[in-house]
Amino acid sequence: MCRWLAYYGDPIPIEALILRRQHSLIDQSLHSREGAETTNGDGFGVGWYDERGGMPGLYKSIQPAWNDRNLREISKHISSPLFFAHIRASSGTAVQETNAHPFRYGRWLFMHNGLVREYPRVRRDLLLAIDPALFPDIEGSSDSEVLFHLALTFGLEDDPLTALELMVGFVEEVGERHGVEHPLQMTVATSDGEQIIAARYSSERQSRSLYFSTDVRALKALHPDIEELQGLSDEARAIVSEPLGDVVGAWNKVPESSIGIVKPGQDELYEFTPRRPGGAPPPKERVSLRPN
Amino acid sequence: MCRWLAYYGDPIPIEALILRRQHSLIDQSLHSREGAETTNGDGFGVGWYDERGGMPGLYKSIQPAWNDRNLREISKHISSPLFFAHIRASSGTAVQETNAHPFRYGRWLFMHNGLVREYPRVRRDLLLAIDPALFPDIEGSSDSEVLFHLALTFGLEDDPLTALELMVGFVEEVGERHGVEHPLQMTVATSDGEQIIAARYSSERQSRSLYFSTDVRALKALHPDIEELQGLSDEARAIVSEPLGDVVGAWNKVPESSIGIVKPGQDELYEFTPRRPGGAPPPKERVSLRPN
Amino acid sequence: MCRWLAYYGDPIPIEALILRRQHSLIDQSLHSREGAETTNGDGFGVGWYDERGGMPGLYKSIQPAWNDRNLREISKHISSPLFFAHIRASSGTAVQETNAHPFRYGRWLFMHNGLVREYPRVRRDLLLAIDPALFPDIEGSSDSEVLFHLALTFGLEDDPLTALELMVGFVEEVGERHGVEHPLQMTVATSDGEQIIAARYSSERQSRSLYFSTDVRALKALHPDIEELQGLSDEARAIVSEPLGDVVGAWNKVPESSIGIVKPGQDELYEFTPRRPGGAPPPKERVSLRPN
Amino acid sequence: MCRWLAYYGDPIPIEALILRRQHSLIDQSLHSREGAETTNGDGFGVGWYDERGGMPGLYKSIQPAWNDRNLREISKHISSPLFFAHIRASSGTAVQETNAHPFRYGRWLFMHNGLVREYPRVRRDLLLAIDPALFPDIEGSSDSEVLFHLALTFGLEDDPLTALELMVGFVEEVGERHGVEHPLQMTVATSDGEQIIAARYSSERQSRSLYFSTDVRALKALHPDIEELQGLSDEARAIVSEPLGDVVGAWNKVPESSIGIVKPGQDELYEFTPRRPGGAPPPKERVSLRPN
Repeated sequence: MCRWLAYYGDPIPIEALILRRQHSLIDQSLHSREGAETTNGDGFGVGWYDERGGMPGLYKSIQPAWNDRNLREISKHISSPLFFAHIRASSGTAVQETNAHPFRYGRWLFMHNGLVREYPRVRRDLLLAIDPALFPDIEGSSDSEVLFHLALTFGLEDDPLTALELMVGFVEEVGERHGVEHPLQMTVATSDGEQIIAARYSSERQSRSLYFSTDVRALKALHPDIEELQGLSDEARAIVSEPLGDVVGAWNKVPESSIGIVKPGQDELYEFTPRRPGGAPPPKERVSLRPN
Repeated sequence: MCRWLAYYGDPIPIEALILRRQHSLIDQSLHSREGAETTNGDGFGVGWYDERGGMPGLYKSIQPAWNDRNLREISKHISSPLFFAHIRASSGTAVQETNAHPFRYGRWLFMHNGLVREYPRVRRDLLLAIDPALFPDIEGSSDSEVLFHLALTFGLEDDPLTALELMVGFVEEVGERHGVEHPLQMTVATSDGEQIIAARYSSERQSRSLYFSTDVRALKALHPDIEELQGLSDEARAIVSEPLGDVVGAWNKVPESSIGIVKPGQDELYEFTPRRPGGAPPPKERVSLRPN
Repeated sequence: MCRWLAYYGDPIPIEALILRRQHSLIDQSLHSREGAETTNGDGFGVGWYDERGGMPGLYKSIQPAWNDRNLREISKHISSPLFFAHIRASSGTAVQETNAHPFRYGRWLFMHNGLVREYPRVRRDLLLAIDPALFPDIEGSSDSEVLFHLALTFGLEDDPLTALELMVGFVEEVGERHGVEHPLQMTVATSDGEQIIAARYSSERQSRSLYFSTDVRALKALHPDIEELQGLSDEARAIVSEPLGDVVGAWNKVPESSIGIVKPGQDELYEFTPRRPGGAPPPKERVSLRPN
Repeated sequence: MCRWLAYYGDPIPIEALILRRQHSLIDQSLHSREGAETTNGDGFGVGWYDERGGMPGLYKSIQPAWNDRNLREISKHISSPLFFAHIRASSGTAVQETNAHPFRYGRWLFMHNGLVREYPRVRRDLLLAIDPALFPDIEGSSDSEVLFHLALTFGLEDDPLTALELMVGFVEEVGERHGVEHPLQMTVATSDGEQIIAARYSSERQSRSLYFSTDVRALKALHPDIEELQGLSDEARAIVSEPLGDVVGAWNKVPESSIGIVKPGQDELYEFTPRRPGGAPPPKERVSLRPN
């Protein structure tokens, strides 16, 4: 079971949320409180957008994150207004950089916690459904990289919510065809550098945990000594697989089967409804889970 | 451009042919005389059969071979009657252990020097042709791993010569369909632990070099100080992408478009004729390139 | 806090004791029951003696052991009558192969669990005491490598028990000179390929755990399915930082401040008494902790 | 033989000078024209100063630089007004990150091409001379890290030119005491983030090559397509072990036995004169090799 974190807001050094000894993502990688496995030592990745635009940067490693000096250096020297960080606990596929999250395509990043169940049985059918033009981009052997490319195939760049619902519907369809019970378990995040879209869903409706920081106070309280955190504006948000720190009430559990958008202005939260490709068109109105 | 070596004969420590300062595979990795690139630093692999049978062992690394202390230790302490060693110069795909040769399936090993031309364009069609039962075994992103699984799909375990010819015919067919000139360049070796099958072929009939040691003297002369080499019987053979050492006349260039079998008793050498799958059945008699 | 294991007896594949899913050293590296840290992911090493003699082989890696495919391959294909395995949890120094145990000098191997307290303060004085002829051999930055070279300086190859006692006495003397309370914490093992010498000692007399298998039944019971284990003779012994498996009464806790020798014939167990170099000569009679 | 590069001037992305296919440091690492070895694949390091001050950042790897995707990402996303890059060809010591250049101490960076001859014989005496307060900082086993700490011991932070001359004088003294002919070969660069000090010296007065860009045109001509290079002001300078690119007259060979300072305003170039510690005080006037 992996751990991940997405940040959106004023530029801060990446280290502020991933590296400090207490209440950081790396701290969680050694002592996860909510995870199925307590150790997440099968590789690490960070993806970040620069303030000046362009493709996001990536740093990936197959070292455990807690040993990686380069990670420490980079995340201290790189500030970013929108970044992803992911610590991997392999569900079986090889520990190699091409299997580390986040994955990138053009301006888009994608990361995933969970798994496609009985992946060796369904992998071929999933790969075949990927747009042949996207196919050469696949370098690893993980289920997550395939989920990303399926979402791209289903139009992630144009309509990310519908694309994610189509991707999940398709994975469930293929799983069922192969007799897999509960084909998919996931929390995912994706971004184009302007917004973060995050979803929580599993075929069995018992999805792994996901939290939004409701309040910038949650982030400020993590490290009173980090100047950049104290100066954060109210727009700043973190989305995490497990809460960072101990501020009561500062973290909202994302509801089961939902999808949210963090962006300038009001965030949005909708019901997540898998769609079978070729099935009914997406509804005109999404079901909002939060009064606007 | 990669370098490779296959050995068959009395058990010798693997280091005897790959690690010594002069005339070894690693020496070639730094100073290749016949290769297109002079440096082969994109990973390394060794596969070996034990005398007691069972699956062959594998050691792979993405370090340059000349820096790898573990390789030095292992190849000094492991003796084997049949082993493969391969130094990779990537033709573009990621440098990761799952892309390092040799590849293994059950008792079989496979390694390759060369490339599938315009691989990103044909990769998907090649992957689709792999037996779905073999598909979960694919872990990397290299063309060579796909060639191996296509050969397995075409019956490598039962009739290796025909399977390799079918694999090549299929790759050429797919390449032509995509408008690729000269779709395949290869020297390959494969083994089940009892015999080594090696082929030299390219669509343009200008294949990379391949040599058989004609004579055990070639191996004995490499390192007069290695006792195990001096005691080799006349059956011992090495097949190499580039001759080791300087003994004139000790190495035979494998002819263009041919396939050889090194095994107990008389070795065999035949013409290599790509076959289109679904085309004419294999000829009853292969064209031997060497009087029996 | 590290985990280690030493085996002496009939040749068995190394994997038998380190790799199986349950009751193995690697299992402990993820879920240690007695260790201070539950995760030991800062590198790994194996050292083994061949039946045919010569320098022991070494395999070291900075990957977590549970992810290392090469380790799996090697430990399946290498059988040995005497081997060491060590999983590192760094006490602060860099995670690099030259800091991984076991360390080797000629025929000797050495590994350590514990630490020299306030090592940065005493390191220079300890290094200075190493025989200049041994000095060039030091490649890493760990306290353990220095302990080994001090023991060699004090005559490990000739009289290992006295050398270890002198080494410890010297480290305590230097620590005290620098005002360090409880300068040393250790369980160590060393071997020349004929015998294993293991000691348990700490300046505060609360040393980390160490166990001997009292009985070959302990090893046989670990994996009823491993043929090589079932055929073990009564001489076979394992010494471990934490018991493997659940056979009640099969493991003897090594007493505080003691040193044992596992060798052909009767094993020996003595009181461990640090000696100040330049102090009184070693006693003519060692205090045996076990009736002969 | 290593390759290195130091840049001073307007902030540019690090990739501009190290990663482009032609005329870059990595290009040199594969096809050095002036180096003794043509391949430099034994690790890599980059050190850079931020515009906002603070300790410089470091990225080090034991992968060959040409395979390192993280290096590509980082050097594309990090811009710096003063950075060092170094590609290592080991002169014998282990390939590990702690042996990769540049080395860092507080605000200072240091990198070296060359070697201390017969280092195993003199290493202990050199280590002993390092200020005990600096000693804990030593993590690797390379001669270069020791040279840096000797220079720090001799006052690098206060008077870098004299400290480097004292360091060299001391290394030559120790070498002579051990009967080493020509104890030192070096080109070195060091910086505190404000200036770059670079020296070329060898005991035999046949030092490895070193070049200053005389003219910002040299840098602009490397990559007409890189906007940041075209906008460089006249202050920008590169110091390199081998010229980048082909602009005739754009690179000045640094004279044998000299030391230069690149800094805001007029650069300086002096004769380099090793001084024996304890010998005569440094001259009041340095011998300038360039009319002011």
